[in-house]
Formats: sequence, C-alpha cells, structure tokens
Amino acid sequence: MSQKISEERMAKFRSIVNQYKSDIIIHPIMRGGVIPDNVQKMLIDEGWMKVGYTICYNCIEGRSSLISKPPVDEFLPMVADFFHGDLAEHTFGSRVAQFAVMKTIADGISKEGSKKFTKVVLTDPLCHYTTAIAAEMSGLRLSEVPHSGHPEYKVKAEDFVNKIESIKKDTGKLPGLIALTHVEPYYGNLNPVREVGKIAKDYGIPYMVNAAYTAGIFPIDMKDLQADFLTVSAHKSMASLGPLGFLITGQDWGRKAFQKSTIKADWTGRTFGKKVPNLFGCSVGGLPLISAMYSFYHIADRVKRWEVELEKARWFASEMEKIDSIMLIGERPHNHHLMHFETPIFWEISKHHKRRGFFLAEDIMKRRIVGLHRGLSKHFKISLYGLSWQEVSKVRDAFYEIAKRYVDEFELDYELPSTE
Amino acid sequence: MSQKISEERMAKFRSIVNQYKSDIIIHPIMRGGVIPDNVQKMLIDEGWMKVGYTICYNCIEGRSSLISKPPVDEFLPMVADFFHGDLAEHTFGSRVAQFAVMKTIADGISKEGSKKFTKVVLTDPLCHYTTAIAAEMSGLRLSEVPHSGHPEYKVKAEDFVNKIESIKKDTGKLPGLIALTHVEPYYGNLNPVREVGKIAKDYGIPYMVNAAYTAGIFPIDMKDLQADFLTVSAHKSMASLGPLGFLITGQDWGRKAFQKSTIKADWTGRTFGKKVPNLFGCSVGGLPLISAMYSFYHIADRVKRWEVELEKARWFASEMEKIDSIMLIGERPHNHHLMHFETPIFWEISKHHKRRGFFLAEDIMKRRIVGLHRGLSKHFKISLYGLSWQEVSKVRDAFYEIAKRYVDEFELDYELPSTE
Repeated sequence: MSQKISEERMAKFRSIVNQYKSDIIIHPIMRGGVIPDNVQKMLIDEGWMKVGYTICYNCIEGRSSLISKPPVDEFLPMVADFFHGDLAEHTFGSRVAQFAVMKTIADGISKEGSKKFTKVVLTDPLCHYTTAIAAEMSGLRLSEVPHSGHPEYKVKAEDFVNKIESIKKDTGKLPGLIALTHVEPYYGNLNPVREVGKIAKDYGIPYMVNAAYTAGIFPIDMKDLQADFLTVSAHKSMASLGPLGFLITGQDWGRKAFQKSTIKADWTGRTFGKKVPNLFGCSVGGLPLISAMYSFYHIADRVKRWEVELEKARWFASEMEKIDSIMLIGERPHNHHLMHFETPIFWEISKHHKRRGFFLAEDIMKRRIVGLHRGLSKHFKISLYGLSWQEVSKVRDAFYEIAKRYVDEFELDYELPSTE
Repeated sequence: MSQKISEERMAKFRSIVNQYKSDIIIHPIMRGGVIPDNVQKMLIDEGWMKVGYTICYNCIEGRSSLISKPPVDEFLPMVADFFHGDLAEHTFGSRVAQFAVMKTIADGISKEGSKKFTKVVLTDPLCHYTTAIAAEMSGLRLSEVPHSGHPEYKVKAEDFVNKIESIKKDTGKLPGLIALTHVEPYYGNLNPVREVGKIAKDYGIPYMVNAAYTAGIFPIDMKDLQADFLTVSAHKSMASLGPLGFLITGQDWGRKAFQKSTIKADWTGRTFGKKVPNLFGCSVGGLPLISAMYSFYHIADRVKRWEVELEKARWFASEMEKIDSIMLIGERPHNHHLMHFETPIFWEISKHHKRRGFFLAEDIMKRRIVGLHRGLSKHFKISLYGLSWQEVSKVRDAFYEIAKRYVDEFELDYELPSTE
C-alpha cells in the first residue's frame, strides 16, 4: 500500500495561492518568458490544460517532433529557419539542448579516439551554470577564457585564440567544443559571438552558442555567427511555459546530435528507430510546446522591436545611477535587458534595517513589484524587458522612494534625485 | 538578423484549435494524466500561466526542489513518503528519472571498475522504450527476460534468476541494475515486482521499478517492493501537466543519484554546489510542478478507489469480448486499466472500407471519443481509467455500433451482441 498522508499535510497544497499574479515582474529569468494574454486565453479556451500529454492526441510516429496535428512537424522547421539553422528539435529547456550537444561531442571523441580533440569545453567565464553541468554530465572538463574584471567583466575574442593555443600546448589537442554564452547571465554582457565563430571555424572546432537569454529577444542568425549549435530556452526568452527549449543545428551536426536509437534488446530484438536518445527518445512537448507555437508570432514580431527595449534598459540604468553610489556593472553602453547594479546605498541601509538585506525585496514587493532576489541588497539583477514605459517608471520610482525613505529615516549621507 | 518568416507561414500557429477539447479521451497514455477541473481552475485563477518560470518568484537557493514558496521543499518529501521512499526529486518525466538512475549505475561501475557488476541492465521484455533509451544514453546494454508469448505475455520472476545466472556465467559479473516495469505498456500486465525485488536483494543488485503507468493510479510501497529506485511519470499517472516526473529513492542510492555538482571552472574557479548534475542542475518545475501539487490530494484519494477502476476495465473487456473475434490480450484476470484488444473483426472491415485501417479511429472520433491510434484496426490499446460508468458504456456502445454498421454494410459473418 501507499503510505497514508494526513489530510492536514496535504491540505496546504490544494490551496496554494500566487500572491504575485497581478504584480509587475522584474526577475531577469522571467521577463522574456512572460506569456502574452492572448496566448494564455487560447491555451485555456482550447482546453489544452485538460490532460498532461496534451499534444499527443494524434501522435502516430511516437515522437512529439513528428506530430502533424497540431503541426509540430511544421513548427520546428520554422524555428530552425527563424534562427537560420537547418534542423531544430524541442527539448526540456536550453539545459537539455546543451547536454545533447556536449554528449554528441563527448561520444564523438570517445568513439573515434580523437587525435585532434580533447575532452575539454572552452567557454566564457560567465557562462550559465547549465553549460558547466552539461559538461559535467558528459564527462568534459570546463576551461574558461578570462574576463576583464570589475566593473565591465568583458570577454575578448582573442583570448579564445590564446586559450586554444594553451590547451593545444598542454594536451597536443584542441578543445572538443567552444561553448559561448550569447549574453551572459551575470551582467548581461553581449559576448563576441561572431568573432569567436570565426576563430572556431579557423581551427575547425565545433561551436555552440547558448542563446538562452537572447533567442526570441533579439535577432539571431546562426549562419552569420558560424555556429554549429544554437541552444535556446523557450521559457526564458520565447514567451513560453516551461520547461521547454530548442536545439538548432546545422545539417551535419544535426545528424549526429539527433541520431536515432540503435540499442537492441536481446530477447525480443526490439529496436526503437524513431526515437532520439539525446532527447530521451521523445521530448514530450506538452502544454509548453503548444504555448510556444501560439507565442511564435509574438516572438517574430518583438525581435524587430529590440531597439525600443534596449532604450528602456539604458534609460532605467541612467536613472538608477542618479541615486548616489549605484552603478551599473557590465559593459557600457549596455546591450541587453539584464542589468546588474551595485547598490552600496542599499547595503548601507540593510545594516540599519531590522529586516537586514531582506528589506529591499520586501519593500519593493509592497509596491506590487516582484522578482528581486530576496536577501540581496549590495547588488542585484533586474530586467524590465517588455514592460510599458509607465511600468518602467513605476519601478524606477519605487527604488527612488525606498532610497529616500531610509536615507531620511536613518539619516544617511547619500545624494538622491528628486522624486516628485 | 533572424530570418524573416512570412505572415502566411506563421498564421496557422496562432489559431491552432483543439478539436478534442470536449471529447471522451481513451488514450492509455492520457487517462492517468487528466487534470481535475478544480486543478485547472486554480492554475488559471491564480495566474500561474503568466510566465514560463512560474515557480521561481521566490527561488533563493537556485534549485526548484529547494523552493519554499510555493512549498516544493515540503511537497517532495511528501511524494517520497507517499511511495514509502526516503528522497524524491522532480524530473522532466519518468524518462529523465530513469536516465538519472542508469547514469548513477553506469558512473558507479565506470569509476570503481567494478569487479562485481557489468554494464548490463536486466529488464522485462515489455519494458517501455524509455528504459531502453535511458540505458543507451548511459552506455548500458539491455538484457531481457522472456515472456510467455501470445496471448498472455506474462513474465515470471524466476526467469530473472535464470538470466542473472546466465549473465554471471558469460561475464563473471552481475547485471548492474534490474529495471522492472511495474505495469508494462503493451498489454497492461502487472509484473512480479515484489518477487523480483526479493531476487534483486538476494543477489545484491540495485533495483529500479518504473511505475510510470501506475504511481498515482494504485497504491505503491517501495519498501514493500524492496526497490532502490522508483520512477514515476506525473503527466502519465499523477494528473499533472507535462513534462513532469519524479525519482524516488532510498537514502543510500539517493545520495548517489542526487549527488551535487563537483565540476570546477578553471579560470574563475566557479563551482555549483547546489546543483544536481543528474537533474541538469535544476529541474525547472514550472506549471507542471504546480499542477502536481494541486493534484496531489486527488491522487492520494483516487488510489484508494483503484478497485472500482479495475472493475470498470474488467467489465469493459468482457463486454468487448462479446463482439465475435475480439480478445483481450495480456494476463487474465486483467490487473490494470491499460487494455490491449485483438480485433480481427475490425481488421476484416478495414479491408472493405475505403478509409482502410483509419476507419476505426475516425468513426469513433465522430462519436466524440478520442485516443485510438489512427490507422490501427487489427488491434488497439485503450484505457477508460477515471471515466464515469456512463462514459464507459458510451465507449462500449460506440464499438458495438461501429461493428454492427459495417457487419451489416459489408455483409460479414460475425455474431454481435445486441445494441439496444
């Protein structure tokens, strides 16, 4: 028998409320994944939430990417085209797409006993943790190029050459993969993706661009970047429910990454020739994949309006820096909606505040703005992507008001912009 | 630049309709994943569909299983308790849970250069394809015990002893894992999970039970089965949106399967000590995980009513067998809601019908019943789990009517039950 769970213990899960449902979201991992109202409405009205395997009513082939009703089999080629790749498969997120890439690379090196490549992924020093985890899962080591340090943390393309040469000197071989984060998740810096693509091509090293924060936010052309693999997060930057991502590849690498299953069971002789091992056989899809199909039009449209979004971010940064001591970290001018601020003023306030570092996230939440990392006051990350100018101003005003309140209350010595 | 996608090409994705939204679902992979109406309502009313990373508003630790608002960190221990395991983590489905298990086993053998175990998974001959794919992904071979063949396809526990001995004779070692499908997905046979658990224990072989079709359907007690790992599909049998599953383990194996990341980036020295590589760092969760929390009460309740559901299945099978030539395949009496029928009568009809094998799924869909595999008429799988008796009768009537219509139309020689 299953164990009996008390009514009392279960009860709280039935009534979980979302206290943030009407709030302005400023969490950088969320802004690109906000679902348009009309997409939410379609998902509800069409009853796609009725069942877990909601995309599988008409599955004939046994793999969600081959389903024609709804037209997943037309959607994926369109996603590939959109990013100027050859092949696309949906995944459980960019993390699984990256794993599929790394596993392809690692298996290739293992099987062929490569004389050319060693089991090292060369990456940027601010790559997302999922890049490191995918390497770890695949038995690859992680080697980084340097960044320029505080306050810009910039990465230079030429350091990839230096590091490749150094790896070559140490091992006699080239790194098996260059994995570059399109925009890194710490400071929102746009990496030199095109230049590194050229370097990768010159050395003949496979090249992956992790565009989890950018694909669906601003225009990306894989061929222009000379990328062999593009990894994308639909819940992070394609206005989709999670978990969902895409792996987009060129023709040759796609054949390897999306190779069909070859395992054979010994007694029945069963084989599974439609299934793709690197995608766990079939990537399920479910409601997230339907949301991505509904949202695609919105995505294709919004990437054209990236400049307006960037203007919002830059305006907000300049407004924030009017508060004494606050500084935007990362490259200037800034090229992405993810912003990282150092905020000594809030750090100082936290020393006087009874809620310590929690005051900042809590105070801003009282203003119906959600997404600051709780507990942080010395520095924080924020995004205003897709918010209206009015909402952007509201967020700015919230920081101004909080700063003013405590500077007055604790009689601190900071100059503040006017808040009327 | 991203490539321009024509309005025309995009348009169809904006308006995808779900033509089955009011239909009775009889697809075996769907019935256990039907979302209760009140759960759908909560998901909508609480605005959880507003954003992709919907569970992450209050993420502090950087892993969704550690989030306390909403209380994922209390939910997972409750899931573990429910199945009488020690540790539980959510995954992107049972397929990923199985992969985590197999990878744990494979890594263990690789690292320790095991004298005791060889890289073989011993499984049942009707295991789900995801078991095979997880083995393939982890570099394990797949070895099967036999089944009894048509029409029951039963698996005997003692054959696991035979196969273990045969592997031992061939390799000098034991299989690294016994992976048994609780109820197999071809005929809905309940495998001898307890007996095999004892065998695994006697030999000291790690033991995984894949309960993708049963956990959340009927009571399961890991300790009673002596299972080290239980893999579960929430979208298949826990009334949840997909993709979502769980891996439940005992204490010792959990420590290995859920081991934290140890990779270290060489230049920054970054480490990722909260992340679990076998779960891609963090399993995201998203809307599916919230649906699972809302549905849990329903799950805990419905497993108590399994006997009523089984009665429905058995009644339906006996009613179907009143149609001349139709036979339930698999064990008798039947012990699961997944039923597999051989239907020579429909195969015969398909030879006369202009829609060939497609007539059956199409005709039943005209009656607002969805989920038969399109194109199959010689045999099919079906489930009525969770349907009302009235709906079950309606499905029965539909098959009776279709049989009668074409037996009359094509003047075939089959005896049919009365349909009034």
